[in-house]
Amino acid sequence: MLPLLELRRFQKHPWSRQTSIFFHFSLPNAFLYSCQGTRDFGKEQMAIRDRAFSIITGVFKMHGAVALDTPVFELRETLMGKYGEDSKLIYDLADQGGELCSLRYDLTVPFARYVAMNNISSLKRYQIAKVYRRDNPSKGRYREFYQCDFDIAGVYETMEPDFEVIKVLTELLDQLDIGSYEIKLNHRKLLDGMLEICGVPPEKVRTVCSSIDKLDKQTFEQVKKELVDEKGISNETAEMIGDLVKTRGPPLEVLLELRKEGSKFLENKGSVVALNELEILFRALDKANAIGKIVFDLSLARGLDYYTGVIYEAVFKGTTQVGSIAAGGRYDNLVGMFSGKQVPAVGVSLGIERVFAIMEQQETEKNQVIRATETEVLVSIIGKDLIVAAELVSELWNSGIKAEFKLTTRISNHLKYAGQSGIPWMVLVGESEISSGKVKLKNMTSTQEEEVERTKFVQVLEERLRNSV
Amino acid sequence: MLPLLELRRFQKHPWSRQTSIFFHFSLPNAFLYSCQGTRDFGKEQMAIRDRAFSIITGVFKMHGAVALDTPVFELRETLMGKYGEDSKLIYDLADQGGELCSLRYDLTVPFARYVAMNNISSLKRYQIAKVYRRDNPSKGRYREFYQCDFDIAGVYETMEPDFEVIKVLTELLDQLDIGSYEIKLNHRKLLDGMLEICGVPPEKVRTVCSSIDKLDKQTFEQVKKELVDEKGISNETAEMIGDLVKTRGPPLEVLLELRKEGSKFLENKGSVVALNELEILFRALDKANAIGKIVFDLSLARGLDYYTGVIYEAVFKGTTQVGSIAAGGRYDNLVGMFSGKQVPAVGVSLGIERVFAIMEQQETEKNQVIRATETEVLVSIIGKDLIVAAELVSELWNSGIKAEFKLTTRISNHLKYAGQSGIPWMVLVGESEISSGKVKLKNMTSTQEEEVERTKFVQVLEERLRNSV
Repeated sequence: MLPLLELRRFQKHPWSRQTSIFFHFSLPNAFLYSCQGTRDFGKEQMAIRDRAFSIITGVFKMHGAVALDTPVFELRETLMGKYGEDSKLIYDLADQGGELCSLRYDLTVPFARYVAMNNISSLKRYQIAKVYRRDNPSKGRYREFYQCDFDIAGVYETMEPDFEVIKVLTELLDQLDIGSYEIKLNHRKLLDGMLEICGVPPEKVRTVCSSIDKLDKQTFEQVKKELVDEKGISNETAEMIGDLVKTRGPPLEVLLELRKEGSKFLENKGSVVALNELEILFRALDKANAIGKIVFDLSLARGLDYYTGVIYEAVFKGTTQVGSIAAGGRYDNLVGMFSGKQVPAVGVSLGIERVFAIMEQQETEKNQVIRATETEVLVSIIGKDLIVAAELVSELWNSGIKAEFKLTTRISNHLKYAGQSGIPWMVLVGESEISSGKVKLKNMTSTQEEEVERTKFVQVLEERLRNSV
Repeated sequence: MLPLLELRRFQKHPWSRQTSIFFHFSLPNAFLYSCQGTRDFGKEQMAIRDRAFSIITGVFKMHGAVALDTPVFELRETLMGKYGEDSKLIYDLADQGGELCSLRYDLTVPFARYVAMNNISSLKRYQIAKVYRRDNPSKGRYREFYQCDFDIAGVYETMEPDFEVIKVLTELLDQLDIGSYEIKLNHRKLLDGMLEICGVPPEKVRTVCSSIDKLDKQTFEQVKKELVDEKGISNETAEMIGDLVKTRGPPLEVLLELRKEGSKFLENKGSVVALNELEILFRALDKANAIGKIVFDLSLARGLDYYTGVIYEAVFKGTTQVGSIAAGGRYDNLVGMFSGKQVPAVGVSLGIERVFAIMEQQETEKNQVIRATETEVLVSIIGKDLIVAAELVSELWNSGIKAEFKLTTRISNHLKYAGQSGIPWMVLVGESEISSGKVKLKNMTSTQEEEVERTKFVQVLEERLRNSV
């Protein structure tokens, strides 16, 4: 029993104060909440998540990636200076003595910290884990959500790991089968070159990039206003940027366009390096049948500061507007920020929560029952005899048949349970079966029943289950 | 590059201040740490963990349990008043505005909160997740570790779920195959009855239980001293307790002993209820061939206050002394503490970190290479031609063959890598192979090589891999 003192301690959800009078007279469980922006995942959701994780892990293993698990919190110092303005969203642990720690904000920084700390020179790893951001739940943003990262660190030939990361991204999205998508791709050095060509002074390149990054949500007119009014870019330069960022299309075609005689990009050193790299990347992706979904898009800028080479972002094109579902790029300096020793790296992060949302919606549309268990047989004992149940169900378990058991005086409850759970077979045992040494098997699909010898029921069920596969 | 200001921010590990002069002149990565009591799990550890999780999940699914995932932090109020003295080990999140949250301390309380909050009347769920305790890392205790819980909530026939939870525990420990173990088992009502019989006043029952709980680590003389000197129990009562807690042995035999004519337990109401329940439980476990590892032990008390019925603890009996590897029991009042509505429950928590430790030690003793990947083929390109590599390896990936690729001018690096990673096949492609339209296949076990047509190499490898299984 809950002591009164204990009861009073439960606070109402702070967001629904307006209804507090009603709730105060309601049951105590009206005062029970989990933290804002967090969720429990119940059985149907977990079944969908498990399916997604299994597809994703399968792709990673196909590429020889190893799993890595890092702590949920890191030293606060590790996270500082990595996320720009978004650092304000980092969750801190309370200072209860000892070092200051914060919950991880993403999986990239812990990966870089791991590589640096263990003096690793090359690693292809994946990690599927939750990350934490004190974002605004009122905008529908979760504060705890899964990320799913694949990264390759180490020195390789030009575009060797970049090719594989993008190939992995296409395999993930194809195999998850959540609808059509495109992968927008650009190169930081090409972007910087473009801005140089347009006359943006070097010290303003990063801030202009931040403005360009908004082009997927704002019109060019809005972005131009920001460039001219807030960032002091000349009208002429802004117009020139506006012209160039329109460039988008099939990778090899756009590449040809940017390299044709008279192109200003050919006079810009960084751009030439980028275009040469991109040629190798595109030709490799072409050979791997993975170029069809790629769109070379000069307006892609990506917010994070740490990217140094190829950058990309996958966008879902289905009826549900969920926007970006994956993003990544090359970040050659992040590991070095920790260790002082440069280890180049490239990776991608899949926004798996959006994938789940799409998969859940698809299941709902199909109107299918999502089975939360894999139970094959329900042993239903009419009566209260646990001993009989224990013996029967254990024989099934010991034979590797997934089984549940229930005791009751009302068989209708069991039939209902088996139906709702999608359990294909029932074993029915009442007093008459016990006295005659038999059990009744019921096929829940055909509703047919058969009586079999108690001593043979496992064998018969094994056969029936094998035949139904 | 790391700016100097950034560099200075990295603190040394506070516990090794004595060596700070040395470290200050060393590389920056000497200043890189993760938080105290936390660990990264690298590829070999993850491979072992994956194997364990897969066995454990298999057992849970065999019993029709559903997965549940809860947030890593809960409202602080949810955790308050559940862990007695251990509450001081709870990690709090910093107060950054909004509600106060704390990291979960175990998986039982979040489960009870979930059942209460969603007004669930019955649920069989498992959860494998990390929990957090601000314990002392200097004693080798981790502050972040996995727990692995299986619980059944709801109203059932007597001992119906208790039987299944203990059966699951034996299946887990049998299938993990980590060495011999025993499961000590007792009943809270029997324990309370025993103390009543010995003359312990009701208000001292819980505190005497805490003392008895130490009997696995202390001698009875030490415990008796605590009972008499600190807890004000008479010498006579303490001696009587000392006599009774010695009772242990095969369940059905001990049961017979406690029920034989003249036994004081027969005059104690709570004890009679407990003995009747235990008879049903033991007979069911006997029928399920799961009683062999159970030891009925009157000295088992279990620290946590919330247990109300059967309690148990699995102890590993291998050469490594790791003590308790799993524990659980019936807790009929915990859900009601949240909702006011009683939902009885019973469960077990597997101390999976100890299981990992044993499995890792076993692997080390076997001196086997733990494969961290499942890669079947390494495509080794002599040269720098990513395009050739991309085409070859993509054909393997698209055929469902797990493959990695590498470009190099030094083939010896690739041979070494394939050997260390345990990759069974290599595809070798140099200039001569490219010009002749062939590739070389190398079996890494037999070291035999064969040249095959470029157009047929996937097919040949598929056959070779199929035959080697």
